[in-house]
Amino acid sequence: MSSPEELHALRHSASHVMAQAVTELFPGTTLAIGPSTDDGFYYDFDSPHTLTTEDFQAITDRMNEIIRGDHAFQYREVTRDEALAHFREKGEVYKVEIIEDLPENEPISYYEHDTFRDLCRGPHVPSTKGIGAFRLLSVAGAYWRGSEKNKMLQRIYGTAYPTEAELELHLVRLEEAKKRDHRRLGKELGLFTFSEDIGSGIPLFYPKGEQLRRTMETYVRDVQTRYGYQHVWTGHIAKEDLYRKSGHIDNYLDVMFPPMVDPDGATYRLKPMNCPSHMTLFASKLHSYRDLPLRYAEFATLYRYEKTGELTGLTRVRALTQDDCHVFCTEEQVESEFGRALQLISEVLSRYGFKDYRVRLSLRGKEPGGKYVADDEKWNRAKDALRRALDANGVAYYEAEGEAAFYGPKADFQSTDVIGREWTASTIQVDFILPERLGCEYIGEDGKPHTPVVIHRAVTGTTERFMGLIIEQYAGAFPLWLAPVQAVIIPIADRHLEYAEQVRTRFFDAGFRVEIDGRNEKTGYKIREAQLQKIPYMLVVGDREAQADAVSVRSRENGDEGSVPVAALLDRFAGEVR
Amino acid sequence: MSSPEELHALRHSASHVMAQAVTELFPGTTLAIGPSTDDGFYYDFDSPHTLTTEDFQAITDRMNEIIRGDHAFQYREVTRDEALAHFREKGEVYKVEIIEDLPENEPISYYEHDTFRDLCRGPHVPSTKGIGAFRLLSVAGAYWRGSEKNKMLQRIYGTAYPTEAELELHLVRLEEAKKRDHRRLGKELGLFTFSEDIGSGIPLFYPKGEQLRRTMETYVRDVQTRYGYQHVWTGHIAKEDLYRKSGHIDNYLDVMFPPMVDPDGATYRLKPMNCPSHMTLFASKLHSYRDLPLRYAEFATLYRYEKTGELTGLTRVRALTQDDCHVFCTEEQVESEFGRALQLISEVLSRYGFKDYRVRLSLRGKEPGGKYVADDEKWNRAKDALRRALDANGVAYYEAEGEAAFYGPKADFQSTDVIGREWTASTIQVDFILPERLGCEYIGEDGKPHTPVVIHRAVTGTTERFMGLIIEQYAGAFPLWLAPVQAVIIPIADRHLEYAEQVRTRFFDAGFRVEIDGRNEKTGYKIREAQLQKIPYMLVVGDREAQADAVSVRSRENGDEGSVPVAALLDRFAGEVR
Repeated sequence: MSSPEELHALRHSASHVMAQAVTELFPGTTLAIGPSTDDGFYYDFDSPHTLTTEDFQAITDRMNEIIRGDHAFQYREVTRDEALAHFREKGEVYKVEIIEDLPENEPISYYEHDTFRDLCRGPHVPSTKGIGAFRLLSVAGAYWRGSEKNKMLQRIYGTAYPTEAELELHLVRLEEAKKRDHRRLGKELGLFTFSEDIGSGIPLFYPKGEQLRRTMETYVRDVQTRYGYQHVWTGHIAKEDLYRKSGHIDNYLDVMFPPMVDPDGATYRLKPMNCPSHMTLFASKLHSYRDLPLRYAEFATLYRYEKTGELTGLTRVRALTQDDCHVFCTEEQVESEFGRALQLISEVLSRYGFKDYRVRLSLRGKEPGGKYVADDEKWNRAKDALRRALDANGVAYYEAEGEAAFYGPKADFQSTDVIGREWTASTIQVDFILPERLGCEYIGEDGKPHTPVVIHRAVTGTTERFMGLIIEQYAGAFPLWLAPVQAVIIPIADRHLEYAEQVRTRFFDAGFRVEIDGRNEKTGYKIREAQLQKIPYMLVVGDREAQADAVSVRSRENGDEGSVPVAALLDRFAGEVR
Repeated sequence: MSSPEELHALRHSASHVMAQAVTELFPGTTLAIGPSTDDGFYYDFDSPHTLTTEDFQAITDRMNEIIRGDHAFQYREVTRDEALAHFREKGEVYKVEIIEDLPENEPISYYEHDTFRDLCRGPHVPSTKGIGAFRLLSVAGAYWRGSEKNKMLQRIYGTAYPTEAELELHLVRLEEAKKRDHRRLGKELGLFTFSEDIGSGIPLFYPKGEQLRRTMETYVRDVQTRYGYQHVWTGHIAKEDLYRKSGHIDNYLDVMFPPMVDPDGATYRLKPMNCPSHMTLFASKLHSYRDLPLRYAEFATLYRYEKTGELTGLTRVRALTQDDCHVFCTEEQVESEFGRALQLISEVLSRYGFKDYRVRLSLRGKEPGGKYVADDEKWNRAKDALRRALDANGVAYYEAEGEAAFYGPKADFQSTDVIGREWTASTIQVDFILPERLGCEYIGEDGKPHTPVVIHRAVTGTTERFMGLIIEQYAGAFPLWLAPVQAVIIPIADRHLEYAEQVRTRFFDAGFRVEIDGRNEKTGYKIREAQLQKIPYMLVVGDREAQADAVSVRSRENGDEGSVPVAALLDRFAGEVR
């Protein structure tokens, strides 16, 4: 297995080679950016030629020639003026804009191979031969710098691996991912939609999608209640000053929705996170150390202004509902509260079929200008507390810099889905900074005021995103407990409608979600449609079933199962849901 | 019983007499406004003297003198210039501002009695003797024109009735209302709070209040599901253009939160109503007449910028969660869908103890400049459809002009609470206008596109407001099904904690909300505290109870009930909740 760093170097190199091929084949093409990604690489072109997949063969052939040429990737540091002069002469306006936006003292470098030179920090493989196996995948429009206000460029996506075998495996997975694509399934199963009249990145849920949300949230809520978390409600907006106090305006403004300035002069913001509101609620009451740990949970919809270009289905949205919790505790309670959160996360993830996860300890980045509240002493205490908690709970982890929240380090839980992709859903964060900023206090055993530590914790993370994940995990065929419609009753003729309604009522009263398909269509047609809708059970009722107080069961997994008494099926449903 | 019109005239007259007394007693006082209200009257003063309740005796004495003087109220129409000259000379700057804001052609009138003259449209009682019995009640700050940007004035509240007996009855009710005041109870029972850091009118719910919300909403949701309503989810914001299309920007802008202008140029608004979002969702799919009626329900938090001066506890908030539903149907289905909504409303209201209600048919106002979408033909069809629906369902109603929604007439359900106050919670509206504006269509039996009628319907109306209402209705002593904490288990000594936990788990697993009070306090103290918290059941456990698998029951209503087996109490709880 290649390391992520090796894969990035290899893909970044493939991106340079692709850029060389495209500029050679389509004169007049200028270059925007061409990074590697976790899955492959892309390059954004501004070209008089409209790129299509029909160009892929020619580009691929030329890339293979360049790769076979075994050209070394060479690094060269240059002065700002030299770089500007070079790209201006070439007419590479995007590169010029990038250089002009770099801080004055930032070193500027090229990577060169064969006849191609790119503004680049690297790293790359030693020579083009090191690229191994690659494949061009698709072409799509992409705004320069991700903003609708800028020019639409043409982006070619590709991927690369050290060996043909690894590439093939990836392509098989991609094919599988396409079959499971939650955006397609969301439409086919009538779960959700988007509307430009409402706004990009704001999903709208049809009844089935809303039922799925509700089931997911009620489940987590019930588990949280069992674990001693208490639910609160704090609305969707707050005064901007609160986010100034908390540090969001300084460190998180990029993803906040624009302000609302009211006629009386107050300014409001949509909530980008719950923490300031929960801390305000905590601070509104007098607390004793006896009240701690106090665990405030809320399923609140937050609003984050993600860039238009980054919005994808439910995976990246602007309206996101988090199963957020803030545990107010003493420094001594961090380990046991971490353990409690860990246990809860593990229970919930495994209910959804995610048995394994890797834990990443996400720390501050070292670069200057990183968006973190500056207080080294508190950062170190938080980091130490989190490390101790991980160790005390026997959790193996790896560290990553630059991935922390702006107010503290995090433990991120990376789960792997059925087709091998890694997702971050759950997170546990330790925060020594915000509670003080927002005036949270409790009276300690010593009779003096103290500032609590706050553990920020999310289980499935964002409901919308997690829904996208599980739609793909189950390929839309939800287990009974999650299925928006758990069974459809199909009366053979109109005279069986009454019995169908009796059966429906019995399931409804037992708390199940069962519908009747009373349309004037053939039974076979209705069964096929229910199969396409991936409904777990189809219950056909005719004369024989009505007489026997039974239904003919056809299950999504096993097909025809013959006649089953209604009472027995109710028991089976109850067992399956548990 | 006096008619509302008589009471208004009498109270408005009392307000003038109070203003005369105050200006005489405290020289330098200028007058703002002094209307009658549904409960009494008030006058806003700008005075160098700080008014307190200690001034009430002197003001009352002087008012009684004036009343005994039997001065006639005399109406006089004057020219704008005359009125301006008069109030300018008197230094009555607020009156001058009011006159300047009147439309040019608006008639201007005085009412005069004794030495007092006020800018006033009336009506009044014939003479001061007609005022009957009055009482000054309280003094409070109030911004000129309700805006924080303006000067804070001093408002004296009072009330008046034709007879001393009626006044006394009202004062007894006021006393009762004070005892039940949901703002005080909300604090004492730990239900909710407000914070200036979040914003005025945005309630924050502590765990107990959140649980109450959740219980209320889950109950209505379950009933709605049983009645064939489907729940959807549409977020909290939408693009401003949607509200331009719907007519909200033209007719509802006053109560909308200010716009959010994003860097890409789109403008968003917080949702003031759900209808445009639900209609967008409807319009996103192709519909056939066979799909109708389609009933979209949502518990969505809406944001309305109510004036600061009008915000009171949960009764008038800026963040309001409606149990909103939009039924898309044909014109022929209006009657039966109205009937379905009516039945649902009646079931829900009576569950909360509101058995009776009056129905008001709220129609457009006739004054020009009223905020209604102009389309007489559609208004008339909607009004006729609503009248037919009321008649077909045997509902008696009275009519009121100027109370309609901007897009259609409404049936408002006015319930009376235990102390005789009337509230509007439920409403059914018939809308022939918005569906067309927002592009809602279905294919009829004739194969052609048609516009559906939309019935807007709310059951408890606003969750927050209805919670305020029921807190007062029950005086905080919620029935078992609603109580946030249904029982508290009180172990006599620490050694009974384990048994207490066993009992708690059994109740928890059966779906009940039960807590243990394990503090190091005396049993009597804990019982007193649970009584103050109005918890329905206190379950004391000691050696004897542990041996007998029982608890000593103390109920909020009946006091000590002796030892009850746990299993029997679980059955009793289940029965009581049903």
